[in-house]
Amino acid sequence: MTNVFSDSSNQVFSRCAIAQSLANKSVVTLDDISTAQIRMLLDKARYIDEHRKEVAHTCDGRVLATLFYEPSTRTRLSFETAMLRLGGKVIGFAGAQLSSASKGETVSDTLKVVSNYVDVVAMRHPKEGAAFVASHAGSVPVVNAGDGGHMHPTQTLADLATILARFGRLNNLTVGLCGDLTYGRTVHSLIETLCRFGNVHFVLISPDELKTPQYVIDRINDTPSCSYEETRNLMEVIGSLDVLYMTRVQEERFTDREQYLRLRDTYILTEEKLQKAKSYMPVLHPLPRINEIAVDVDDDPRAAYFEQVKNGMLMRMALESSVLGDELPGYEPTDFVNVPKDELEAYDAHGISLANPRVHISDENAPENLICPNSRCITNSELTLKRRFYKAESDRHEYHCLYCDEELQ
Amino acid sequence: MTNVFSDSSNQVFSRCAIAQSLANKSVVTLDDISTAQIRMLLDKARYIDEHRKEVAHTCDGRVLATLFYEPSTRTRLSFETAMLRLGGKVIGFAGAQLSSASKGETVSDTLKVVSNYVDVVAMRHPKEGAAFVASHAGSVPVVNAGDGGHMHPTQTLADLATILARFGRLNNLTVGLCGDLTYGRTVHSLIETLCRFGNVHFVLISPDELKTPQYVIDRINDTPSCSYEETRNLMEVIGSLDVLYMTRVQEERFTDREQYLRLRDTYILTEEKLQKAKSYMPVLHPLPRINEIAVDVDDDPRAAYFEQVKNGMLMRMALESSVLGDELPGYEPTDFVNVPKDELEAYDAHGISLANPRVHISDENAPENLICPNSRCITNSELTLKRRFYKAESDRHEYHCLYCDEELQ
Amino acid sequence: MTNVFSDSSNQVFSRCAIAQSLANKSVVTLDDISTAQIRMLLDKARYIDEHRKEVAHTCDGRVLATLFYEPSTRTRLSFETAMLRLGGKVIGFAGAQLSSASKGETVSDTLKVVSNYVDVVAMRHPKEGAAFVASHAGSVPVVNAGDGGHMHPTQTLADLATILARFGRLNNLTVGLCGDLTYGRTVHSLIETLCRFGNVHFVLISPDELKTPQYVIDRINDTPSCSYEETRNLMEVIGSLDVLYMTRVQEERFTDREQYLRLRDTYILTEEKLQKAKSYMPVLHPLPRINEIAVDVDDDPRAAYFEQVKNGMLMRMALESSVLGDELPGYEPTDFVNVPKDELEAYDAHGISLANPRVHISDENAPENLICPNSRCITNSELTLKRRFYKAESDRHEYHCLYCDEELQ
Repeated sequence: MTNVFSDSSNQVFSRCAIAQSLANKSVVTLDDISTAQIRMLLDKARYIDEHRKEVAHTCDGRVLATLFYEPSTRTRLSFETAMLRLGGKVIGFAGAQLSSASKGETVSDTLKVVSNYVDVVAMRHPKEGAAFVASHAGSVPVVNAGDGGHMHPTQTLADLATILARFGRLNNLTVGLCGDLTYGRTVHSLIETLCRFGNVHFVLISPDELKTPQYVIDRINDTPSCSYEETRNLMEVIGSLDVLYMTRVQEERFTDREQYLRLRDTYILTEEKLQKAKSYMPVLHPLPRINEIAVDVDDDPRAAYFEQVKNGMLMRMALESSVLGDELPGYEPTDFVNVPKDELEAYDAHGISLANPRVHISDENAPENLICPNSRCITNSELTLKRRFYKAESDRHEYHCLYCDEELQ
Repeated sequence: MTNVFSDSSNQVFSRCAIAQSLANKSVVTLDDISTAQIRMLLDKARYIDEHRKEVAHTCDGRVLATLFYEPSTRTRLSFETAMLRLGGKVIGFAGAQLSSASKGETVSDTLKVVSNYVDVVAMRHPKEGAAFVASHAGSVPVVNAGDGGHMHPTQTLADLATILARFGRLNNLTVGLCGDLTYGRTVHSLIETLCRFGNVHFVLISPDELKTPQYVIDRINDTPSCSYEETRNLMEVIGSLDVLYMTRVQEERFTDREQYLRLRDTYILTEEKLQKAKSYMPVLHPLPRINEIAVDVDDDPRAAYFEQVKNGMLMRMALESSVLGDELPGYEPTDFVNVPKDELEAYDAHGISLANPRVHISDENAPENLICPNSRCITNSELTLKRRFYKAESDRHEYHCLYCDEELQ
Repeated sequence: MTNVFSDSSNQVFSRCAIAQSLANKSVVTLDDISTAQIRMLLDKARYIDEHRKEVAHTCDGRVLATLFYEPSTRTRLSFETAMLRLGGKVIGFAGAQLSSASKGETVSDTLKVVSNYVDVVAMRHPKEGAAFVASHAGSVPVVNAGDGGHMHPTQTLADLATILARFGRLNNLTVGLCGDLTYGRTVHSLIETLCRFGNVHFVLISPDELKTPQYVIDRINDTPSCSYEETRNLMEVIGSLDVLYMTRVQEERFTDREQYLRLRDTYILTEEKLQKAKSYMPVLHPLPRINEIAVDVDDDPRAAYFEQVKNGMLMRMALESSVLGDELPGYEPTDFVNVPKDELEAYDAHGISLANPRVHISDENAPENLICPNSRCITNSELTLKRRFYKAESDRHEYHCLYCDEELQ
């Protein structure tokens, strides 16, 4: 065993331990991997971009399955290209109507079947918790490519890579997030993950109807080096931002149509509005956009959303090769991979907040007849799944569904 | 020419002749290939499993087309992975809405087109006889991946490989088949093929509504070394079985719902029921399962149905490389490939039962205006197809459709 | 710079210039490429067919995206096989329901995304002008695989290759085109392109309802070495034809059902009718056929429509490798690539008719509030696209939509 902690320096994880520890690991959420591992993936993505020819045979002989129970073409093509660019091959399906799901097969059975064919799986599923089920059913690593509104970890990795590429760091930044902060899964995940790196000031820009949920605010508050402010007005704060993350404000989220019409234009980014922003402020967006970023912004060097697409592919290359245990030829980690001490203190070796540990509930201790109240949770559509729960803290009384993280009263 | 018969020993086919004879051959039904060739495929599958790296470039430069006119994701992924694992590539479509079929093109025309693109075709089609049409239209070998309820030969090859892997033999076995024995195409094909190897006692377990059809019973009766018994009750016989093949009992098959409800649980296999079975009795199932095998059986070492999936892929690798004429590097047939004399006596060189030969009807001798009565037969949807027939025996009066095998009065 | 004009001989384009000039070029219509480049592609296709092994790694490491917003399985499989046979790989989607289009993303945004993944794109889209939009949005070359009823350049390349393979030339031919000459996009494109090579007599065989449109007739008239005749009756002219191009007559095109029924059989080619044709007259058809060519013609050596499929794949191999800038190992252009002087005189270096030049309209000079009247034009569904126009000649007053070529009054 390699000693993963070092008390003589700021370097807390041995590089070897980090690299090996992702092999054969499923990634359902970024909580599944340590901050050091995220650093390693970011570092590998940079290396891959600079050494495309050298890495083109890293995964020769490997096969990826893309199991997309609902269409998400951009994400699917990104996962597939990533594997092809590493020398591997791809099988899969896209859209439930094409799958055995129409015959009523469970996610578990599909994974047990597909594990016989491939070396790694990327799965998209409309039910929350589906990727968790998949990761426990098959014998190969599963990467969550989106399970309903629950988790989409590789989108967050793409976001991080884009910020890192522009600034060379992920902290000491003022990060604005604008639009629908209530339902935007990518926004929540980005905030939570930036908190793990610390030293970020978040500017949360949204209408009152679409404010950031409390559990995300709690995460910021639990991180001493992070802070936030909330505002309705993009133009009031745009000049102070280092990064602007745009999301779409959907009309159907509003109860009051008049308010929607009044607010709508506030949340559309134009080249004119950009004139008030810093000259180096990258604009991110998870795509697809409808009209929340005007087309004339595309030619502005601050537009970073198509760069994000490239970074998404690079991060998926880093992740796929890592969970396969395939080493990138010639890759040597840079200093960025070393986790600073202060970053570590708030998180355990797996990157889980020490202030917010999970307490798993054994079957004997589980309260009887608990049912997850989330109608989109996979335990409410695949009834043979064993219901399981955890507590966020040992001294608290609320349970959370282990599949979809929903809180139970 | 190699002399394929040897009178000095039990070894009746020369290995060379067997290996060569599959090259460029279509496989619509297992009747298309000799028992010796089935043995060769089983032997190759075992070799492939043990030499995955060595065979990974067997089909370099080859392209497979998967033409799936109806979705069957598991089967399609199996065929595709098989080709990828051999070094080849794949094109194709899945679902009629994606194909030119929507423009009314015949199966023949599609095959004449696709033959220009690829080296081998795997085809799934809802019409019975479609694979036969395809095999005669194109210039490349066609493997039937299921034509309606008619044939699905690679499923049977997967079943055989699973029994062989568990026992090292395909005979001297008591094989139980449980559930829907009337409509279960895989069950009929397995029984018929096991009869070719001989020395099997079949235990046919089904409700009265879903008993084995007479032509399958006839096949057993025509095989001197084989025998059968019929029963409604799984638990009465489970202790005597060497192999248990489960299938699903669909509610819609029953005319009497009360009877369905009464019988349903009888045909659900649970870990509790398995306690009465032999310790080595493998449980097979063609998948997908709904609830006819309880999830708790999955962890029992007797559960062989996910192994079957792996064996299906291996058999497709053996078959695809064989019909392409691509030799597996380093492969030497084992003794299993030699066909014993007693196995041969009942069958001709092509494995067709000598007791049940086919008499093809030339166009001149064909009775006029004969139409296949099977509404699912492709000759009743593609009307430009020339109707053709055969007789099961020369002294019998019934005709059979050459496409779908339906008997005409 | 290579001097592309040579005054000392008939050889007007230097081979080097031709070969290089296609690299990184999009092909929306054959007007995008010079006659010399078409000759080079035809020459390369012949070479590829004769050297399949040698070219099998021409595009190693390359990735093609097939973006098919509507299904067109034959075309998609042809583009995909072409890339696979060159050593490249493929990602893509087929059918709008599978794409992000369902989320309202524009073609431009999709291309900006996909450009990050792949090296070349083949796109099929129901809207006219979509390929033009794509070719200007992405950073990689786009090949139009059909944009509504507008253009489908690789079909015409397949047609040309088939005539060339049969005759060794593309001129001094009497070419019959039969069936629906009004709506048949492939027919118009073939006529226009053959005019670029010159010396063709066209025999236009159609019912009155489905005659050749005036702009195509104009193109023939503008070409001094070409001529045409029109007739309703295939049998009157079949004996004089060197080539017969069949298309389908769709019942729904007729206003008068009686006339359809009377004419229908006239436009069905049978082996009997072929007895009156020249012994070497190839029969072409863009496929799929329904019944306009009887199945008994397939075995006639004059049937060339399945050959056309092969040639389509070969031309796509030539085109894909050319726009990628990947040289075919061992390829040396033959004399066919040299453009004769008389072929050049009527066309500029880009193959645009000198008698019919396009005059682009700058934004300042564009008339205000012009809207393309073509309801199938992409500018009428993607409203953020800037409307642009050109004039066919500088002294004419009609404008044409730059996207779909529709004439505005």
